[in-house]
Amino acid sequence: MDSSIKSQPVLFFIFGGTGDLNKRKITPALYNLFLDNWLPEKFAIIGNGRSELTDTAYRKKLLEGTNEFSRKGKVVKKQWDEFASKIFYQSANVSDDKSYKHFKETIEKYETEWKQKPVIIYYLAVSPNLFPIIGEHIAKNNLAEESDYTRIVIEKPFGHDLESAKSLNELLATIFDEKQIYRIDHYLGKEAVQNILAFRFSNAILEPIWNRNYIDHVQISVSEKLGVEERGEYYETAGALRDMIQNHLLQLVCLIAMETPINFSADEVRNRKVDVLRAMRRFKPEEIKKVAVRGQYGPGWVEGKQVPGYRNENDVDPNSNTETFAAIKFFVDNWRWHDVPFYVRTGKRMHQTASVISIQFRDVPHCVFQADSTDNWQQNRLIISIQPEMSIRLQVQAKRPGLEMVLNPVDMIFKYEEATETPEAYETLLLDIITGDQTLFMRADQVGFAWELLMPLLNSWDSKKSLSFPNYSADSQGPEIAEALIAQDGFHWFTLPIKNKL
Amino acid sequence: MDSSIKSQPVLFFIFGGTGDLNKRKITPALYNLFLDNWLPEKFAIIGNGRSELTDTAYRKKLLEGTNEFSRKGKVVKKQWDEFASKIFYQSANVSDDKSYKHFKETIEKYETEWKQKPVIIYYLAVSPNLFPIIGEHIAKNNLAEESDYTRIVIEKPFGHDLESAKSLNELLATIFDEKQIYRIDHYLGKEAVQNILAFRFSNAILEPIWNRNYIDHVQISVSEKLGVEERGEYYETAGALRDMIQNHLLQLVCLIAMETPINFSADEVRNRKVDVLRAMRRFKPEEIKKVAVRGQYGPGWVEGKQVPGYRNENDVDPNSNTETFAAIKFFVDNWRWHDVPFYVRTGKRMHQTASVISIQFRDVPHCVFQADSTDNWQQNRLIISIQPEMSIRLQVQAKRPGLEMVLNPVDMIFKYEEATETPEAYETLLLDIITGDQTLFMRADQVGFAWELLMPLLNSWDSKKSLSFPNYSADSQGPEIAEALIAQDGFHWFTLPIKNKL
Repeated sequence: MDSSIKSQPVLFFIFGGTGDLNKRKITPALYNLFLDNWLPEKFAIIGNGRSELTDTAYRKKLLEGTNEFSRKGKVVKKQWDEFASKIFYQSANVSDDKSYKHFKETIEKYETEWKQKPVIIYYLAVSPNLFPIIGEHIAKNNLAEESDYTRIVIEKPFGHDLESAKSLNELLATIFDEKQIYRIDHYLGKEAVQNILAFRFSNAILEPIWNRNYIDHVQISVSEKLGVEERGEYYETAGALRDMIQNHLLQLVCLIAMETPINFSADEVRNRKVDVLRAMRRFKPEEIKKVAVRGQYGPGWVEGKQVPGYRNENDVDPNSNTETFAAIKFFVDNWRWHDVPFYVRTGKRMHQTASVISIQFRDVPHCVFQADSTDNWQQNRLIISIQPEMSIRLQVQAKRPGLEMVLNPVDMIFKYEEATETPEAYETLLLDIITGDQTLFMRADQVGFAWELLMPLLNSWDSKKSLSFPNYSADSQGPEIAEALIAQDGFHWFTLPIKNKL
Repeated sequence: MDSSIKSQPVLFFIFGGTGDLNKRKITPALYNLFLDNWLPEKFAIIGNGRSELTDTAYRKKLLEGTNEFSRKGKVVKKQWDEFASKIFYQSANVSDDKSYKHFKETIEKYETEWKQKPVIIYYLAVSPNLFPIIGEHIAKNNLAEESDYTRIVIEKPFGHDLESAKSLNELLATIFDEKQIYRIDHYLGKEAVQNILAFRFSNAILEPIWNRNYIDHVQISVSEKLGVEERGEYYETAGALRDMIQNHLLQLVCLIAMETPINFSADEVRNRKVDVLRAMRRFKPEEIKKVAVRGQYGPGWVEGKQVPGYRNENDVDPNSNTETFAAIKFFVDNWRWHDVPFYVRTGKRMHQTASVISIQFRDVPHCVFQADSTDNWQQNRLIISIQPEMSIRLQVQAKRPGLEMVLNPVDMIFKYEEATETPEAYETLLLDIITGDQTLFMRADQVGFAWELLMPLLNSWDSKKSLSFPNYSADSQGPEIAEALIAQDGFHWFTLPIKNKL
């Protein structure tokens, strides 16, 4: 780490400071950064919320959250106390200028105390309908004027469709420079996701095979064992397409499909990713049925317990038309990928929790082996597993030990160490915000092109009620039509063997 | 296995039936084939030797050998007894026609008893100077007339140089068809060696990278921890070049470098291997110093025990000029391999026992990472380990888990199961002899071209005394000049981490 960054003070304002995201993710991540000596010497964390709370009471709440959710387990008191002494609470009404004046006083106080201008980070861990309100008040109260020193962090959803995303981006652009805006897609902060680019561009042997001449098709599958849980109200307005595909899965497509950047600077990498979104084949309304299918889970049994169907979940319309599963066949229309299908699927209440990318290579041009050697013949695959296992596997064929020449598929495996040793996505992303590295954050145009691509699907699904919902049961591989989507091309969805640990 | 082969009786004549090779390798291998139900229902094994022995005494000797040397450990009495009841001993003088008449009577006896013509295998587990004598007597006594039913097996050395190899091949050709001759290079029967072809030609992703555009250089290293032991007399006439490189190591070069055969038939595979030997760049006498180095071990310490230098071993000339180490840089002059060096080395009394092939790939054309990400940068390598570990590793780079983008070399590994589960080379080769598959055996022209390639080296080394011998000590990586041979091109010899087990 650059030592100049270490000596640059940081002031965090966390909007939604009493909320779930702060308790589960932001504070545990900041604490772990502090433990591992990544935070600058001078920093302060100002949480705000509507309630009245003393600093002591607020710290106690965050301590409970950190003990429960930190990957490092329970805190050591002495270390926590030192960290917590930099945490403060300010009661605030985000629609009231008075609160922002209070923030301004706080900033001035620290500037005087630290004798140095701090980097100021406004983390909006709040409902998206508050983004414009908070943004406008920050602007009006001159809290974001110095674009080199102030940063704003927002969490998805970045809009509900192309139009609302455009409005939000336009509004933010009137207040902030794009270089001040950190749109978090936490998926991009995961170790195994970050490794996709490292792996692709540091291994020369991948270069000649990473194209339509050698790659048969790509699968990206993000399945969850959980149902919608307590998020019914939000989920009813979203669905799988908005909640998962518009952001996480399309970003994974970009990482697999992007051209080699000239370097790893933030805009260079994001330019190459936007190139992919721009090259993705647009859906004609009449083709949608052939390339996209949706599902909604019904009731069922998971590990011996009966679980409700989506329509019986809390805060869900008993006639809900919202999809909890989506599978789509994409194409990237450029020289590298022409006619290579990218099959993407995601769903809740699936048989396993797993995020896996499978790159299947074309077959050998001519088989030199005798027929009785090849009963288990399998094309080569590169499997990038993001969770729960973090691994890269190359599925190859080798001679089965024994007196006959029989080929068997075997895996060449690289597994990451234990997950507790690996930083959480939020640690990576928070450190990047502190150091001002936007590589892993969504730029306005990325968000826009992703929405643009999906609008024909969204319009079709929003407007037409699905007559078959629910169409898959809990603990399954999703609806049968998703199997058909890929089976019609002669493939099947790839799954890694299930681990006991979810 | 083809059921017609199972019903085809087999009669083994083992010349040198009381010798070491039979005790350690041939009989344990035949016994394991018997246990695993690979032998035909009707078979008999006739050992011969100069001594007078009863069948019972002979079986007892072989039982001791099998108990000691079989990979499956001690025999189960009931199974051994059944197997041993098919073993017989005939005292013989290989220069006396009477002995061959005796063999003929035995064959006729079994033909009558089995009511079927058996496959007859003459296994010459004897000193090579007896090959011509035995061959001529077999011919004179009409024991090899039916070329579909009779096979002759010989062990290396196949000659001492090009001329003597030619003479031997020519002599054998007057007696046998080439299709009757099984020249054993037991290295080719090893599982991990057989897998080289299986792996190369069943994995489509290797095809585009398996050439001079992507491969930087190849290393083949076969090192032994043992010294010359009790083989001083033979070794004095051989040396590392004749003992290891002319056969095992050049065959490994062929397996790595050969073009794709159209199928796995014996002559097709051997044609493609011969193509490699023919394409290998011939050494000009004046260049030899630059591309080939030799060594001889001095005394030293191995695992706390003092060991003698080569010149102090039993049956070795105290001024011996014989090399116990050789390292050579080969080129294969064809379109696929032009200017890709194949570095080959072998030696006795080295730091570890290991047979490893390392294929190092060229670097990425342009590094997109920042300088501080690439301190541990390493080019991709494919490592095929033949022994003691049987494995294939792909050395790639990945992001080191953590908050910074730092690339680290990691291994994607496939390891074979425990060695006790894997057939020994002799089992594979004996079964191939029974079924009449010559793929893994050396054809006359393979032997000839390998000698032809090495003759300039042999002539040079045989004629010039090395002034520096001994030039490496026991438990080392060989002589320093071998490091220099590869270091002058910017590389170093690759070694896998040492296992405890040798």
